[in-house]
Amino acid sequence: MSQRIDGHPYPMIQALEQYRREGQTIGFVPTMGCLHRGHQALIEASRNDGNLTVVSVFVNPAQFGPNEDFDKYPRDNDRDYELAAAAGGDIVWYPDVADLYPADAQTSVRPGALADKLCGISRPQFFPGICTVVLKLFNLVRPHQAYFGEKDYQQLAIIRRMVADFYLEIDVVGCQTVRETDGLAMSSRNRYLTEADRDTALTLVRTIEAARRAFAEGERNAAALKTHLTKAWPKDLELDYLDFREPDFLEEEHQLKAETRLFLGAWLRGIRLIDNAAIG
Amino acid sequence: MSQRIDGHPYPMIQALEQYRREGQTIGFVPTMGCLHRGHQALIEASRNDGNLTVVSVFVNPAQFGPNEDFDKYPRDNDRDYELAAAAGGDIVWYPDVADLYPADAQTSVRPGALADKLCGISRPQFFPGICTVVLKLFNLVRPHQAYFGEKDYQQLAIIRRMVADFYLEIDVVGCQTVRETDGLAMSSRNRYLTEADRDTALTLVRTIEAARRAFAEGERNAAALKTHLTKAWPKDLELDYLDFREPDFLEEEHQLKAETRLFLGAWLRGIRLIDNAAIG
Repeated sequence: MSQRIDGHPYPMIQALEQYRREGQTIGFVPTMGCLHRGHQALIEASRNDGNLTVVSVFVNPAQFGPNEDFDKYPRDNDRDYELAAAAGGDIVWYPDVADLYPADAQTSVRPGALADKLCGISRPQFFPGICTVVLKLFNLVRPHQAYFGEKDYQQLAIIRRMVADFYLEIDVVGCQTVRETDGLAMSSRNRYLTEADRDTALTLVRTIEAARRAFAEGERNAAALKTHLTKAWPKDLELDYLDFREPDFLEEEHQLKAETRLFLGAWLRGIRLIDNAAIG
Repeated sequence: MSQRIDGHPYPMIQALEQYRREGQTIGFVPTMGCLHRGHQALIEASRNDGNLTVVSVFVNPAQFGPNEDFDKYPRDNDRDYELAAAAGGDIVWYPDVADLYPADAQTSVRPGALADKLCGISRPQFFPGICTVVLKLFNLVRPHQAYFGEKDYQQLAIIRRMVADFYLEIDVVGCQTVRETDGLAMSSRNRYLTEADRDTALTLVRTIEAARRAFAEGERNAAALKTHLTKAWPKDLELDYLDFREPDFLEEEHQLKAETRLFLGAWLRGIRLIDNAAIG
């Protein structure tokens, strides 16, 4: 049975205290709701690791910019509950904005250089907002393990860094990107895509596949490969970045290695699309 | 018997784990060393609250500006150990810079509006640096109670705020300012004062006493009192601020109340002096 908790965290904290006393480990999957199979894979991973699994559903205002889609970000709490429960989530928690950002709250987390690149350039409030809410959630849930998708690889790297820098006793688990049958990385924003958009949106995963093929055929020069990959870029897909980076500090890689990751960010009619993968 | 631990935190964490299992509460007094009776009063308060008491001694580079006195900040670990032990500290821990700021560390805490006033104006790195190291120390020591002096009242208010905003389960205890027999607030930097400086430095506590007298005699107008208090200000005491503020968010107070605090910051030959007290 999954338990649904709306609002204030204390019922959840009390429920978890009981499980903790019984020696149960806690797994945590923080989400912005609008769940899809990618989130369900995180919940399943936590369950497979033997955790009592908490799923939070919270659209975090701090990570949206003034002209971004906070207000129209999709919300469907009942459907999210069903999907989280079906994947094995034990507690599904819906904090209100006032529970995580009371009027007097003013302290925040400032991630370092990892947040100043890729998605951080066009969205400077994004990673500080994520780190702040994730630290709050971590301190309330106090999980043993926390699960994040590799689709948001920069977020995963920044949260790993925060956990290390602040000496949090949490094992951060990265889980493989889940894709639609056509290869598009699962994302809550995919629902905004029309049929006509879809083919253009698939440019991201096709570019990753092309990079992997080129690497397999011996290409090691990042600049040359980038030129090749952007040659036939669709006009209506506004490219934000296409970068080859090493996996820990996301420094640019000039000489490609198997663990080098290709990072892609773009907008299609204002819809944010990102994807990434190791090229080897 | 007091235990001295140099460097890496893990021996301390292991020692504390044992005490915690035995049901012992942990009290924590973070210091920058150069201990005096003010620090000893914090250690004694923790002991009186029944805590196993951890004292950290760490001169935190992140809270010093480029032209401030980090390098020449006084350090005397052996003497600090004796003073901490004499006051009843159970564990005295001296982390190295590399223990709290490893080369890869990059995540920090950004306090909010509370840090943008008083000492935060002339020293913008000060409170972010303090919050960052205190959060790291809190997460390593995981105390039940933590003790801070009211002499650094703005620091106390900012740390209370951080603890609330980040949902840390720590009771932050503020302790009254300890003063020399002549009234000067205890400070590690007092040793820099010559006999001739001393009388000038006492301007701060004399100003507080004058404000308290004026309030007792019925003065309620902050601006008028400020004009009165600064009329005969010594030329060689460079005034940074003299402000009446409410005690929680340190907002300026125009109409004086008993709980209104007078905050003073100044430099004497480059030596930083601060003091504060409730005027009622």
